[in-house]
Amino acid sequence: MPRSSDARDKAIATTARLLCRQGYAATGLSEVLELSGAPKGSFYFHFPGGKEQLATEAIRSAASYVLHMMQVTLDRSETPQDAVRSLAALFAGWLERSDYVEGCPVTTVTLETEPGSGPLADACAASFQNWQGSMRRYLEAHGYDADRSAKLANLIMCSLEGAFVLSRSQMSPKPFSDAADLLLELLAPPN
Amino acid sequence: MPRSSDARDKAIATTARLLCRQGYAATGLSEVLELSGAPKGSFYFHFPGGKEQLATEAIRSAASYVLHMMQVTLDRSETPQDAVRSLAALFAGWLERSDYVEGCPVTTVTLETEPGSGPLADACAASFQNWQGSMRRYLEAHGYDADRSAKLANLIMCSLEGAFVLSRSQMSPKPFSDAADLLLELLAPPN
Repeated sequence: MPRSSDARDKAIATTARLLCRQGYAATGLSEVLELSGAPKGSFYFHFPGGKEQLATEAIRSAASYVLHMMQVTLDRSETPQDAVRSLAALFAGWLERSDYVEGCPVTTVTLETEPGSGPLADACAASFQNWQGSMRRYLEAHGYDADRSAKLANLIMCSLEGAFVLSRSQMSPKPFSDAADLLLELLAPPN
Repeated sequence: MPRSSDARDKAIATTARLLCRQGYAATGLSEVLELSGAPKGSFYFHFPGGKEQLATEAIRSAASYVLHMMQVTLDRSETPQDAVRSLAALFAGWLERSDYVEGCPVTTVTLETEPGSGPLADACAASFQNWQGSMRRYLEAHGYDADRSAKLANLIMCSLEGAFVLSRSQMSPKPFSDAADLLLELLAPPN
């Protein structure tokens, strides 16, 4: 990989991590440059839109990793119950391994921006839609009708996003496991 | 009410509103002073701990208002199903009336701070515990055993907090109503 592209990728990865820990407003360009070791001179060459462009790309990159990991988890799960249990464990594990400081960057940035205000808010909205769509299609493929699949996908995403918040706050994986326990009851095999 | 206390209350209310819109890091003291009309001279008299103290008091004040409104809603609800439907409508209404820019300040600030890092993170954690406790006691009073009440209260809080995020992102109350529809299924009257 050429060095310039490497610096670009590192800046995006560093930003994604900082968004997970502290959100958009607290993340300054100087911190990103220092932590990623990217040369300041080429920053505006790679990111002519400045901090907003960098954060937008970091959100897209983080969201696409989450989507990939969700997809892998869904593909490996024999039933929707397995899938929800495994997703909750995946997310709880990420948070736990970071000592409860690296949450979902899409949630934090969504709450810091006005919806519809530009590319950053749009990237957040697209992330949620993609995750929800992936879950909805999985449920449809497992026999739930379109309406129920959409509602279940929505509740699963809402409760796992909420669990990211409560789990961080309580420094415990319990919000994820409690949520999963009850979601399983809603996922009894369809007739 | 004496003028000095009035200025203090206005600074807290203004801060709470800004935390709902944009979070902690983006909220500067100068913005709070300008919007609340509070005199700069007396600020450190009222808030010797500076911005962190102000935000901590704003979180406590907002959380206690939410707790009060939750309690009123629960007291008025004949069944847990009614209660969840009404809470989802209450929260969706708040977000909708702000044109989807004023969410739950406790979630945003939780995601911007490290858990256990000080009074601000502690105030956020206490807010969630109080809300969850209120819901748990309500469910226990309606016949659910302690374990199920705790799990249900946790899932209800996670999914409504998550709905605040997805609803803002989509500028639609649907995440709340979809979540409530399915939560009702889990709240069939206990035997």
